[in-house]
Order: sequence, then C-alpha cells, then structure tokens
Amino acid sequence: MKIGILGTGMVGATLGAKLIQLRHDVKMGSRAANNAKATDWVNSHGAKATQGTFADAATFGEIIFNCTHGMASLDALKMAGAQNMKGKILIEVANALDFSKGMPPTLGVCNTISLGEQIQNAYPEVRVVKTLNTTNCNLMVNPSLVPGDHDVFVCGNNTEAKEKVTDLLKKGFGWKSVIDLGDISGARGTEMMMPIWLRLMGVFKGPNFNFKIVH
Amino acid sequence: MKIGILGTGMVGATLGAKLIQLRHDVKMGSRAANNAKATDWVNSHGAKATQGTFADAATFGEIIFNCTHGMASLDALKMAGAQNMKGKILIEVANALDFSKGMPPTLGVCNTISLGEQIQNAYPEVRVVKTLNTTNCNLMVNPSLVPGDHDVFVCGNNTEAKEKVTDLLKKGFGWKSVIDLGDISGARGTEMMMPIWLRLMGVFKGPNFNFKIVH
Repeated sequence: MKIGILGTGMVGATLGAKLIQLRHDVKMGSRAANNAKATDWVNSHGAKATQGTFADAATFGEIIFNCTHGMASLDALKMAGAQNMKGKILIEVANALDFSKGMPPTLGVCNTISLGEQIQNAYPEVRVVKTLNTTNCNLMVNPSLVPGDHDVFVCGNNTEAKEKVTDLLKKGFGWKSVIDLGDISGARGTEMMMPIWLRLMGVFKGPNFNFKIVH
Repeated sequence: MKIGILGTGMVGATLGAKLIQLRHDVKMGSRAANNAKATDWVNSHGAKATQGTFADAATFGEIIFNCTHGMASLDALKMAGAQNMKGKILIEVANALDFSKGMPPTLGVCNTISLGEQIQNAYPEVRVVKTLNTTNCNLMVNPSLVPGDHDVFVCGNNTEAKEKVTDLLKKGFGWKSVIDLGDISGARGTEMMMPIWLRLMGVFKGPNFNFKIVH
C-alpha cells in the first residue's frame, strides 16, 4: 500500500521504517520537499522510501499518518491540503505537548476538546483514527518491547476505518489487544494520559512501559 | 485510629464503612452537623461511627479523607478549617468532575494545575496525599473486585505521609501494588485519567476495571 507520513521526527521515522519493513511504499512529507532529515531517512531506507512536501505525502498516501508535533499539526494539515486527504484514513498519533512553559510540558489542547477532534472537525471528509499516542514510538511498532499483555487504544467516527487501522496494528505492528474507545472524542481520554505517562517515564526510568486495562 | 471523613456521598460512605471494619473510629463530616445521609450512615455502622460538621470531622481525625465532590472540595476544606487539619495527613481522593456542561463531564481543574495541588497550596501545613481517585469507590477498598494485578497511585510532597498512606492501602485495603508518582503535582496525571476512565466504563459496561502499568 502507498502510505504518506507527515512529519520527519522520531515518530515519523520509526513508523515509516516499520511500514517499509512491512513492504509498503512510504513518502515522508515535511514543509520543504528537500527537508534534510527526510533525505537522511530516505537514503537509509531503500527504494520504497521517498520524500516530498506535506501535500506530496498526503497525495501519495492511500493512508496518511499524522506524526507532526501536536502543537503544529493543524498548520501541517493545512499544507497537506483537504483535497489531498479527502476520503482517506488519517492515523493520528500526535500529542499537543506544550513545552513553552517549561517542564513538564502541559497540553496545548485539553479537557473540552482534543487534537484528534480538532482535526476531525477541520477535515470532516477525512476519516481520522486516533491511536498509538499513549506509547513511545519504538513500542508503537514493536509492542513486545514491553513483555506481557498490554493495550493500545483506537477511537474515531468511522467504523470501517477503525477496523482497517486495528488490522494494521495487530497484523502489521504486532499489537495483541486494541481497545475501541468509540468516536473521536475518545481522543480526550488518550491525549490526557500524557501527564501520567510522563510521570511514569520518571518512575520506570524510561519509556518502556505501557497501560493494561485489567477487568 | 481516629479518622475524619469529609463528604457524605458514596465514596465517603464506602471508605468509612471499610475503615470501621478495620476497627478505626470514623466521624463523617458535612456542611450541617445533622446531615441526613450522614445520620443514615452512622445508624447503620455501630458505635465507632459518628457525624458532625466538616470542622468536627477534621478536628476528630488523626487522618482526614477528602471525599467531597471535587468541584466543592476547596469550599468544604475552608469549612473544615486550616487549624483543625494542621500537621495531619489529608488523603485526597476527589476528582473535579464538572457536569455543568452536560455529559461526559469535563474537569474543573486541569492541565496546568490539579485539585491535589490546589489543596496542598491552600494548606501548606497539611500533608496532602493524592490517591485512589483513579478507581471506583468499591474497588478502592476491595481491589480484588478486579482479578489479577493492577495498580493504585500515590503522590504527595511528604515521604512519611505517603508511606503511612501506602501502608493503609496495602495492609488495610488490600492493594498489592502502589506506585509512587512523586510530589503532589503528580495529581495532574491521575486526575487527568478521568476522561479515559469514563470512556472505559462505557467499554466495559461498569466500573470494575483498573489500570496496570506493565513494564
């Protein structure tokens, strides 16, 4: 499948590498078509890896991942272009972490609205599925980094889109348990797990932990 | 031990009942010394159960539980009186759930500050320990309602107070795993778990679930 990745950070690079390993074609998009980090990533990931603008990546992808910084996602998606994403699944993994007031970061979008909802509201013809934002990027594509049973969450307004994303999470990335939180407003729940996640990273001296819902 | 419970709702009644079962003396406090719900509770819990005002309960308790509605906790604590709580441990289990804008509730205190911090800031001579606010009240005092391993969190600025509360959680209430999140600002993490908790209550058709941090 052709997949567009918006964002050239660790999350985009890690997801892109895994998707290429799964034999997908991946175009990494950024503000500039010749972004140096994207070039480095393309050069180390073979013929199935290409780069371009946000709009190029959105146009290329049958599925699009939003891996931009959450505080910049709406700007990045504007550059990606509504018409280039229309009808497509947008897998939204960002967190609007606001570091402008120092550490620990607060959330730039919170409580009465989530980034996932903001994006779905701005692009009603895109099928937004929020997922993976409660784990470190290495764990996103390799859940066995944390031994035992643990969960990843999905939410979104379109059932078929969630099923396709769940299929990728399970068969592609190796997640055994995917919990469907319902419509996209469930993103408030997962995005607001960032403060406990950041605390737990301190407790466990790193990001290799995850949530399991015991019931 | 003498324990004061602020609040006559399900959380206060459930915690109070368990504490009496553990052979503590419990005074339930509310705005009015003759609160009808407190009277009902006292009448059904034997000689170790008494009632009074918030100030009465705070004065009585060697340890105090804040089981008031989170949106009203600061008002209730003002009535409890700083001088009556001075030097004592306040076990803070409330969530500032704001139902005024409809369902699902949002948080009245969120992101850049937590209710736990607000209380600690308002009463610097009280040793505030935030805990148990990520579980239903029945699970608070009977963690085996959810089978298997799962966690409860504590945070607070005073290490000795956290140790005493952890001891009560483990030996009194039966918690096997208590995760120390550090100082009271960790309350932002646990309070902001309410939105995912409310979603999960929908997924699992009730409150008998809990978080396990797998690492």
